[in-house]
Amino acid sequence: MVLLEFAMAPRDKGEELVEYVSRIIDIIDKSGVAYQLTPMGTILEGEWREVMNVVDACFEELQKDCKRIGVGIKIDYREGGVNRLKGKVDAVENQLGRKLST
Amino acid sequence: MVLLEFAMAPRDKGEELVEYVSRIIDIIDKSGVAYQLTPMGTILEGEWREVMNVVDACFEELQKDCKRIGVGIKIDYREGGVNRLKGKVDAVENQLGRKLST
Amino acid sequence: MVLLEFAMAPRDKGEELVEYVSRIIDIIDKSGVAYQLTPMGTILEGEWREVMNVVDACFEELQKDCKRIGVGIKIDYREGGVNRLKGKVDAVENQLGRKLST
Amino acid sequence: MVLLEFAMAPRDKGEELVEYVSRIIDIIDKSGVAYQLTPMGTILEGEWREVMNVVDACFEELQKDCKRIGVGIKIDYREGGVNRLKGKVDAVENQLGRKLST
Repeated sequence: MVLLEFAMAPRDKGEELVEYVSRIIDIIDKSGVAYQLTPMGTILEGEWREVMNVVDACFEELQKDCKRIGVGIKIDYREGGVNRLKGKVDAVENQLGRKLST
Repeated sequence: MVLLEFAMAPRDKGEELVEYVSRIIDIIDKSGVAYQLTPMGTILEGEWREVMNVVDACFEELQKDCKRIGVGIKIDYREGGVNRLKGKVDAVENQLGRKLST
Repeated sequence: MVLLEFAMAPRDKGEELVEYVSRIIDIIDKSGVAYQLTPMGTILEGEWREVMNVVDACFEELQKDCKRIGVGIKIDYREGGVNRLKGKVDAVENQLGRKLST
Repeated sequence: MVLLEFAMAPRDKGEELVEYVSRIIDIIDKSGVAYQLTPMGTILEGEWREVMNVVDACFEELQKDCKRIGVGIKIDYREGGVNRLKGKVDAVENQLGRKLST
């Protein structure tokens, strides 16, 4: 299973991007794929093809009316790893023996 | 103010990294800088120098016993932007008019 | 057209990775897609689907014998932009009026 | 020694950024630090403090007249590793036994 974090935004629409970001998050939220929205991007959890299809759909959405688009993607694949959206943070809290800011 | 997301890990210690990641998170948690731990990294909020000093301290910690280290950093600076650790997600939820998975 | 830079490596094989990186570069080199190899990754130029297919093929190659894989991808899409593998560096050199280290 | 790749650009100046990018490259080129300019960023080679100081200087330059700035940084530290700006690409070419597109 894959954890995929990504951020995607137009580069030709100035500095106020919440409208564009929201169109992408709407696609993600309705995709059925497990995700977590953070202040710096969105983290998807699923099989490689499943999460990459969501990234494709988001790009196609922005491509409709944006002439320049920037995308950053970071992937952590672990064979057989499940429920890591929650598990990775839990593992650090267990190691340190206290709750952290999440 | 700056939002800085980063992930740092040894590349010479195999695939089980929770011990090393926890040493870094411990430094961040005790730094006094506002942060959010995610499954893919840690997001700091503060002035440029302040957040970069935390990254420096984490690197010095791993350098003690790691021969190869990988680091990824993503920064979003906005003049005068405050409380964006919380505010950026809120803005998307307001735009879409519903709660999201955070 | 898209410029896509990516780096992909196993996270469970220690610090000497040239064998794995070479298997990926071999796929890229034979794909027919325009590319530039750098010390930190590979930059592909092509249509979205075309360059993403190369990334997919590289992941499938590593997935055969790697249990944990890390991937970083950065994309710069520009409507109608062509030959930017060469053109972006040229534009900076023209702006500064001198040759740079490339 | 550290290989540090980074890209930094204003997010409030539209899609034509060569003027801003050139101001940064000018600082790098005059810093005395070994570097390679690529279509997607600049790769510095040096000690941690040395290369981070260059990143700091570039940010201070853009901060003068940009209200929103995006930065991406990727670091590969290897104890004792030298001349990897050239050496990493050579190693892949040696492994594959042929010249690649660089």
